[in-house]
Amino acid sequence: VTLRAKASAGRLDGKMREKTLTMDTLNPQVKAVEYAVRGPIVIKAGEIERYLEEGGTKPFSEVIKANIGDAHAMGQQPITFLRQVVALCTFPELMDSPSFPEDAKWRARRILQGCGGHSLGSYSASPGVECIRKDIAAYIEQRDEGVPSDWENIYLTTGASDGIMTILRLLVSGKDSSRTGVMIPIPQYPLYSAAISEMDAVQVNYYLDEDNCWALDINELHRAHQAAKQHCQPRVICIINPGNPTGQVQSKKCIEEVLHFAYEENLFVMSDEVYQDNVYAPDCQFHSFKKVLYEMGPEYFSSVELVSFHSTSKGYTGECGFRGGYMEVINMDPEVKAQLVKLLSVRLCPPLAGQAAMDVIVNPPQPEEHTFKQFHQEKSSVLGALAEKAKLTEQILNAVPGIKCNPVQGAMYAFPRIFIPPKAVEEAKALGMQPDMLYCLRLLEETGICVVPGSGFGQKDRTYHFRMTILPSIEKLNVLLGKVRDFHIRFLKEYSGLE
Amino acid sequence: VTLRAKASAGRLDGKMREKTLTMDTLNPQVKAVEYAVRGPIVIKAGEIERYLEEGGTKPFSEVIKANIGDAHAMGQQPITFLRQVVALCTFPELMDSPSFPEDAKWRARRILQGCGGHSLGSYSASPGVECIRKDIAAYIEQRDEGVPSDWENIYLTTGASDGIMTILRLLVSGKDSSRTGVMIPIPQYPLYSAAISEMDAVQVNYYLDEDNCWALDINELHRAHQAAKQHCQPRVICIINPGNPTGQVQSKKCIEEVLHFAYEENLFVMSDEVYQDNVYAPDCQFHSFKKVLYEMGPEYFSSVELVSFHSTSKGYTGECGFRGGYMEVINMDPEVKAQLVKLLSVRLCPPLAGQAAMDVIVNPPQPEEHTFKQFHQEKSSVLGALAEKAKLTEQILNAVPGIKCNPVQGAMYAFPRIFIPPKAVEEAKALGMQPDMLYCLRLLEETGICVVPGSGFGQKDRTYHFRMTILPSIEKLNVLLGKVRDFHIRFLKEYSGLE
Repeated sequence: VTLRAKASAGRLDGKMREKTLTMDTLNPQVKAVEYAVRGPIVIKAGEIERYLEEGGTKPFSEVIKANIGDAHAMGQQPITFLRQVVALCTFPELMDSPSFPEDAKWRARRILQGCGGHSLGSYSASPGVECIRKDIAAYIEQRDEGVPSDWENIYLTTGASDGIMTILRLLVSGKDSSRTGVMIPIPQYPLYSAAISEMDAVQVNYYLDEDNCWALDINELHRAHQAAKQHCQPRVICIINPGNPTGQVQSKKCIEEVLHFAYEENLFVMSDEVYQDNVYAPDCQFHSFKKVLYEMGPEYFSSVELVSFHSTSKGYTGECGFRGGYMEVINMDPEVKAQLVKLLSVRLCPPLAGQAAMDVIVNPPQPEEHTFKQFHQEKSSVLGALAEKAKLTEQILNAVPGIKCNPVQGAMYAFPRIFIPPKAVEEAKALGMQPDMLYCLRLLEETGICVVPGSGFGQKDRTYHFRMTILPSIEKLNVLLGKVRDFHIRFLKEYSGLE
Repeated sequence: VTLRAKASAGRLDGKMREKTLTMDTLNPQVKAVEYAVRGPIVIKAGEIERYLEEGGTKPFSEVIKANIGDAHAMGQQPITFLRQVVALCTFPELMDSPSFPEDAKWRARRILQGCGGHSLGSYSASPGVECIRKDIAAYIEQRDEGVPSDWENIYLTTGASDGIMTILRLLVSGKDSSRTGVMIPIPQYPLYSAAISEMDAVQVNYYLDEDNCWALDINELHRAHQAAKQHCQPRVICIINPGNPTGQVQSKKCIEEVLHFAYEENLFVMSDEVYQDNVYAPDCQFHSFKKVLYEMGPEYFSSVELVSFHSTSKGYTGECGFRGGYMEVINMDPEVKAQLVKLLSVRLCPPLAGQAAMDVIVNPPQPEEHTFKQFHQEKSSVLGALAEKAKLTEQILNAVPGIKCNPVQGAMYAFPRIFIPPKAVEEAKALGMQPDMLYCLRLLEETGICVVPGSGFGQKDRTYHFRMTILPSIEKLNVLLGKVRDFHIRFLKEYSGLE
């Protein structure tokens, strides 16, 4: 008799005690959380995968998961040097191996020197290993052309998500009309809306301008802020640059406007810059919020509270599984900082392998080092391919009638707008689902392609989108985009009554 | 001009805009969090360490951190086999190296087979890598002598702390008198009280019986539960077995009583079993809550909601930095389980290196494998030394007048009761601190030994304790205990006016 059968038996004979934790007693804030990137469509994709594995048949032979920015899962190879350093840290006996380069060995030795008992198995200080924090600060100074960075402002995190949740945890408080309002872009990466739900804060939407390459419009910030003040206290503004899911890269002028706005309205700025190395459009450049703040002068640079997030998961390394990341915290009240450290300490520390991986990203091989050539080749190859795929995706999608895709200037996603015929919209409504969910489910069922409906990220009413990653190999991406095109044309025909 | 000077200047000339996040606007639940294991005394210890490094002098040459269960930091060596497997997963080129054993290679290959793109750099499914979940279920079945374990009930976590926080997050809800009451042992591991504060739940204390080797007394559970029902809804009972900080190992009878109580009172059971491999007393044995529940019969086994937590950080591996762990979830409502998966998915997945380390712990070398001998030697050596240190600590402490230490039956800590003379209690009160905080600060200042005051874990009024780990090497532990003895005698003399 299986457990499940036993439990059912118990329930049937009426003797079962009631469960303590049910949908009725569950924390309602948990219930309110939504996370589309791993939501219903992805669960469905998993079911289809298992069905195929078990010999079932479909009009396709494999599911292509373009739902999540998971580079290695799509075949991207790890950066050799990064893995060498982490392997050396993990198994220091390899220091004696001639097949590991000295450049990697000295970095590993230095990291281990900073670890308790010289072991990756010790807890680090809660903000992270000191020498890694120093390397990160040095990296930021270099990136920002000399803008000072204090290593004591650097906190290692368990991926960027962990840092974002932690900072929001500090900021969110209040009840009723004094509840904390958190301004987020729409479309957004749904970690933000999920965190806001879980913490019972108020989500304050500012809409990106799709007609202007998803640019952030300062007038829209003012509108959203004014409206929100009626029912909550807007205290935070979150920016994702380069954008996820929207792929835009913000101009310096736009960043200045946002920072000025935050300064004027006393908003805490959370700047999600995990795609800072993922800029493809030749006319775009990554500007860090911190550097722009610095250039606005000491009045701004000494006062605006700003946290910037980075991660090992994106860029050219794509090391999602290591759960590495950091945040730089500027102008935080010193007493609050002590509270931040206390809060971090309850979770003890971020994973050490992730911290080591982060260290390689901020302290990569230099031109004078032996490992530079291979490292540089691997890095360029990943970023070059991504740039090519960004262009390819935009071009193929824009050639499809009823699809319009802004340029993928950066990050790892296309977020095309799709025309959904009124009949399909009605059908979806009758089924109690969003029209783009219907679209994506059909796409999955008919082609095996898994993308996420735009409704999971937020979008203007009566517009529909999906998010797809540009991570598959060029060959696979071509196939994928061809299938999307054919599907879309079929879908339009079917619901426009043209069949 | 440094950033700090700039900021101060700004503040002095009165032009500074106010900070958004201050102690006044900080989330009050964050403010309420306390976490003694990395609290003020540990911050002080860090300051003294830096002072010594910079050439300062003290009556001692080094700070000994006996405040936290951080085995490698205290010199414990990693288990070779575990590190080999993780290194192979990290840098699969090592599969070709003859210096790595086949036993490690096949495990690494199997883990990588379960990873997207066969890379540790991919996200795993949010509950963890499937084959690792299956290994864990098999391990539990073996540990519990055949009690069935379903791999779909296994969720990998980022250390046990993460799992505990996640489950509490599901359970905690309600306002005013319907607020969730969480029953925890006193003394407790302060993750529990910190989580309860952060989530604004109600901490319901049940006191362990110090006079009876810190046993859990069922009458005390009833008392605590009855009292709590007046002002909240007790919905969860947390048990730590073997005990942290108290080191007791629960008898089977006691576990039966707790489970019966949970059954009767409709409580969700959270069983923190991270020290399940750390049992030293010859007359003690680890009994899992799950196995005991099974033996109580199907009525119990099919109904009591139970989550058990385990970790890579303790046991004989001590791999804290890998942040590995798992939880087994029994009898959870299927709809709630889907909510759990959703909540986990927001954080994407636990670190893959930690998942791999967990896999080695549940799937260690078998007697027929070549690596068994070395593995077994290393494991026995760690556990043998811990048993010896547990005994040594108890003996030396009990020989000190004014200190009484229960046997360290398991886990990694002694939690001796210390007599603090009334004059010292008064002095502490005048300083606005707990008497055992005064004691521990003096101990740190005079001997360099860092232990955590009992008040950080909770204790009966007018009793005082400290927690120290038994992790230092035997040689160092002897020195440490000798210094504690000498300090305690001096302290008693000073405050009893006998000097």
